[in-house]
Amino acid sequence: MQTVGMIAEFNPFHTGHAYALAQARKLAQADVVVVVMSGNYVQRGEPAIFDKWVRAQAALQHGADIVVELPVTGAVQAADQFAEAGVTALAAMGVNTLAFGTEHPEVAYADLAEKLATAALTGDGFRDYTQTYATQLNAVYAKAAGITQTDPNFMLGLSYAKANLALKRPMTLLPFARRGIGHDEVGIQANIASASTVREYLRADQSVKAIVPTELVDFYAKQQQYSWAQFFPWLKYRLQTAELNELRLVATMAEGLEYRFTQKIDDAQDMTAFLKQVKSKRYTYARLRRLALAITLNMTATAVNQARQHPQLHVLGFTPTGRQYLNSVKHDLDWPLLTKVSADMLAPDGVLAMTHRADRLITTIGGVEQNYGRRPLM
Amino acid sequence: MQTVGMIAEFNPFHTGHAYALAQARKLAQADVVVVVMSGNYVQRGEPAIFDKWVRAQAALQHGADIVVELPVTGAVQAADQFAEAGVTALAAMGVNTLAFGTEHPEVAYADLAEKLATAALTGDGFRDYTQTYATQLNAVYAKAAGITQTDPNFMLGLSYAKANLALKRPMTLLPFARRGIGHDEVGIQANIASASTVREYLRADQSVKAIVPTELVDFYAKQQQYSWAQFFPWLKYRLQTAELNELRLVATMAEGLEYRFTQKIDDAQDMTAFLKQVKSKRYTYARLRRLALAITLNMTATAVNQARQHPQLHVLGFTPTGRQYLNSVKHDLDWPLLTKVSADMLAPDGVLAMTHRADRLITTIGGVEQNYGRRPLM
Repeated sequence: MQTVGMIAEFNPFHTGHAYALAQARKLAQADVVVVVMSGNYVQRGEPAIFDKWVRAQAALQHGADIVVELPVTGAVQAADQFAEAGVTALAAMGVNTLAFGTEHPEVAYADLAEKLATAALTGDGFRDYTQTYATQLNAVYAKAAGITQTDPNFMLGLSYAKANLALKRPMTLLPFARRGIGHDEVGIQANIASASTVREYLRADQSVKAIVPTELVDFYAKQQQYSWAQFFPWLKYRLQTAELNELRLVATMAEGLEYRFTQKIDDAQDMTAFLKQVKSKRYTYARLRRLALAITLNMTATAVNQARQHPQLHVLGFTPTGRQYLNSVKHDLDWPLLTKVSADMLAPDGVLAMTHRADRLITTIGGVEQNYGRRPLM
Repeated sequence: MQTVGMIAEFNPFHTGHAYALAQARKLAQADVVVVVMSGNYVQRGEPAIFDKWVRAQAALQHGADIVVELPVTGAVQAADQFAEAGVTALAAMGVNTLAFGTEHPEVAYADLAEKLATAALTGDGFRDYTQTYATQLNAVYAKAAGITQTDPNFMLGLSYAKANLALKRPMTLLPFARRGIGHDEVGIQANIASASTVREYLRADQSVKAIVPTELVDFYAKQQQYSWAQFFPWLKYRLQTAELNELRLVATMAEGLEYRFTQKIDDAQDMTAFLKQVKSKRYTYARLRRLALAITLNMTATAVNQARQHPQLHVLGFTPTGRQYLNSVKHDLDWPLLTKVSADMLAPDGVLAMTHRADRLITTIGGVEQNYGRRPLM
């Protein structure tokens, strides 16, 4: 069976995502579309608006054949680590083509990735404390490979290409043109809005009829929504009571930010106000939001390392075609394939320990068990 | 100046407390009544119903001349450690008589304490995992000194006497008869109710006119109340996200309880339900509540040790007489006397670090800064 894979967040799933899945299937002439999707937390450092089961269900109804969870340890990371987690998971699923939407489908991503790999991407280029990492990375890219574009999906495509290059057996890259609107742009074009616009409409209880597949309108209306507003009291509590040494154990903590965070939290009444307080030239909002989320979830560097050392494929759901594919490959996969989640997987030393830690908060808020005993959607 | 000291919680201050302060002053023929009072958290493992400033003010208006804070590291502890923290603080204040109300004022506390000190109060008597520590302690007391009473204030008096005996210069013990009702008993006798009854009335918005000094009725009505209800979401969050190794660092954690606590928390909707879930024959509710509070406040064994190694006297307030006394002794005190609280005292390595950690939560709930820049009430 010809497979194509995509890495996604579906936060939430909308018309543009349905188009992208259809494009991937068509261009790859694929029988099976495999998606690795962020679990309950997303790369911009916040909970997804709907839980992973809701988002997986929407995807399975609109073009995905298998949805596998991208664990929080890979999902809440800068682009390169996010890409690596997604790409390695797709490869572990036996996928042979990696499709992604981009502003620049004409670019030779694999070639660029090779150029970047041979260039010295060491820490030396990143010592300017008055600029963000992203800005400095762009400069290094420009020098090494003449890259001057910084469109977000193009940049993410480069991260995919770099991660793919590092695989023993790299997948075929299949960049295709995104339709409609930019990543975080506001507005609607040809029935396609950015996910952030869809979230904004949903949060304001405005109709999303024009921008999500019809059947999802009512489905979304019934679902529990998640946002930083629910998590912020926990962040504040944690920053007010944690020892500095404990905060230093959190993944992606950078020297000095533990002081800044603990000193600025007392007066902050919400996440927006807090982020404004801690913002500096050195760090982007996304970086700071991810760190704040890692603190809230107590996602330690150790937990991230453990997850990397014991990777697994947690299947959230599949179509009949997806099931057929899983049955044909399940004995040949490099990573354990998890369907029904048992207590030992969630235990402190289990393969889903960090996922469970993060998802218990979702269950506390929404009342829907996220892991224990749950079987894949069919 | 003749001094008398008392150790108290005033949770909240009521008619019985006014009586006790007057008794202490009279019996000791004292010019100055010094009180060491639990800060924002009390020995039964919960926040005090009113913050420490409110309770100190009530005490200063009704018989106390000086109120010094008993830090959370001493206040939220089993009786012996609680007593030690209070007794050493009173002694450090230069107090020469320790008064306490008891069901059995006729007992020779100092003598009993000597007998208990020479008896082997080692861990050997405490290995029965089907009984609480308190029950086993009673058996050891009975064997060593023939003590068969277990009335709570009598037992606390014994703890005071033991701690006093360990001082370089022990204070004179002044036990006196409690008037009215037992510690946690329900009901009112001769206008005196237990503090728990007063709390119950206040929480239910019932009149406390008959059981607190008149001027306090309106004062109490205006104050922010605190209870486990406000803290429980933090406990739940912490137990859901902490690593077991982190929980093991918490003061008074006992082997096995970290598993029990983390496993039972998911389904608990409030503190009462949670405590029922974790209760066993081995541990009293008070012990488990204290541990839950220590977890919530992240009161680590290290923080407790640091506080013991760097003791201080944080003055919450004084009367003109109290001020006169403080001026006469302030250069001769063994421990630093803190009046205005500065930022360096609250810093992670400051003498009030753990107090600050615990009190930030009170400020978050009630909106009243508890330490920084606050001067003693006068």
